[in-house]
Amino acid sequence: MKLQKRQARPNGEDRLAEIYKIAAQIICEKGFDATSMNDIADAVGITKAGIYHYIPGKKELLFEIMNYGMDKLDRAVIAPARAITDPEERLRSIIANHCRLLTGGSTPQGHNPVSIVNDEVAALTPAHRRKIVQRKRAYVDLVRKTLRQLKDDGKLKDVDVTVAAFSLLGMMLWLSRWFRPDGRLQRDQVVEEVTKVALGGLLRPSARFVAR
Amino acid sequence: MKLQKRQARPNGEDRLAEIYKIAAQIICEKGFDATSMNDIADAVGITKAGIYHYIPGKKELLFEIMNYGMDKLDRAVIAPARAITDPEERLRSIIANHCRLLTGGSTPQGHNPVSIVNDEVAALTPAHRRKIVQRKRAYVDLVRKTLRQLKDDGKLKDVDVTVAAFSLLGMMLWLSRWFRPDGRLQRDQVVEEVTKVALGGLLRPSARFVAR
Repeated sequence: MKLQKRQARPNGEDRLAEIYKIAAQIICEKGFDATSMNDIADAVGITKAGIYHYIPGKKELLFEIMNYGMDKLDRAVIAPARAITDPEERLRSIIANHCRLLTGGSTPQGHNPVSIVNDEVAALTPAHRRKIVQRKRAYVDLVRKTLRQLKDDGKLKDVDVTVAAFSLLGMMLWLSRWFRPDGRLQRDQVVEEVTKVALGGLLRPSARFVAR
Repeated sequence: MKLQKRQARPNGEDRLAEIYKIAAQIICEKGFDATSMNDIADAVGITKAGIYHYIPGKKELLFEIMNYGMDKLDRAVIAPARAITDPEERLRSIIANHCRLLTGGSTPQGHNPVSIVNDEVAALTPAHRRKIVQRKRAYVDLVRKTLRQLKDDGKLKDVDVTVAAFSLLGMMLWLSRWFRPDGRLQRDQVVEEVTKVALGGLLRPSARFVAR
């Protein structure tokens, strides 16, 4: 029984991850309102009863997609950043990894579960919303702390740390609205250019152009 | 008859503007999905039949709110910018006016019809969506044209004009997600700080610090 569960688990998780990804794409395209559990079941290729085996309802699905998006942010951006002591290096890591994550969608629209986190919070139940807001706040705090350290080190421009943090987040998060994987610019180019604009707006030239 | 119409018009327009504003607030708070025509009628203080006198349905209301938001953007940002020949001055005008518009909401949440334009496009009918996308594109083109002129003048940093345009838009538009009129920072301070980050990221120091 135990063995069976262990064997079955990875497949179940893969299946869930696949459902979240596909559901996120549909919700991005149609909006949460216009998306039915039927649409998602059809796209995944299972019956409506089948999808309710994995997820109890549409609002729960949205919450799970957001948690899945936040898990990805944790793994790809937050955990690597926390391991870096130097605040400038940490900032560069945050920008590069977050931009890469946001431009890593597999559809031509570039949609991925990470962008859903920001766009459909109003549709969550109050209890779920609190949890997602808490996870997002932890990330904002990490960005803000990093900028505050840079300010203490004299490396940040003379700008308010909170405004700087949200301006940076806005710049990055907007990527999920405009970036297209099939567009003129390659993903790496876009990440590099956004990094240039962001660091140019935040860091003093002396910090940015050391040894150039 | 003609005179009556002329006299009645401003009141009708005021009433409509009021409905759009209140509906925009409710949609921002609850999401378009969860907002009913009844909620809006209640908040405006008219009957459900009364609101259908002004607006045929919820989807049409969303379209009208977005047009109303774009009208505000036209008047407050686009028209003044088009009147400015010098691209650097035009960029500064765009940033200041757009940031002021986005932070000018009358509720503690700072919500206003301008932010709806970006967040609920998926809920529009395809024909309406095309119209809103067209109006938004005209604005993006103005920003991009301004940055291209600055590049030609050697005032823009070595960044891709499209990435620069969308990074700037992301920075500004994110204001409607995080700025709170009752927060620590005054509206004018926030506008000034965002302007500093934006110009620091986009313009070469020589262009920014002339005569300082």
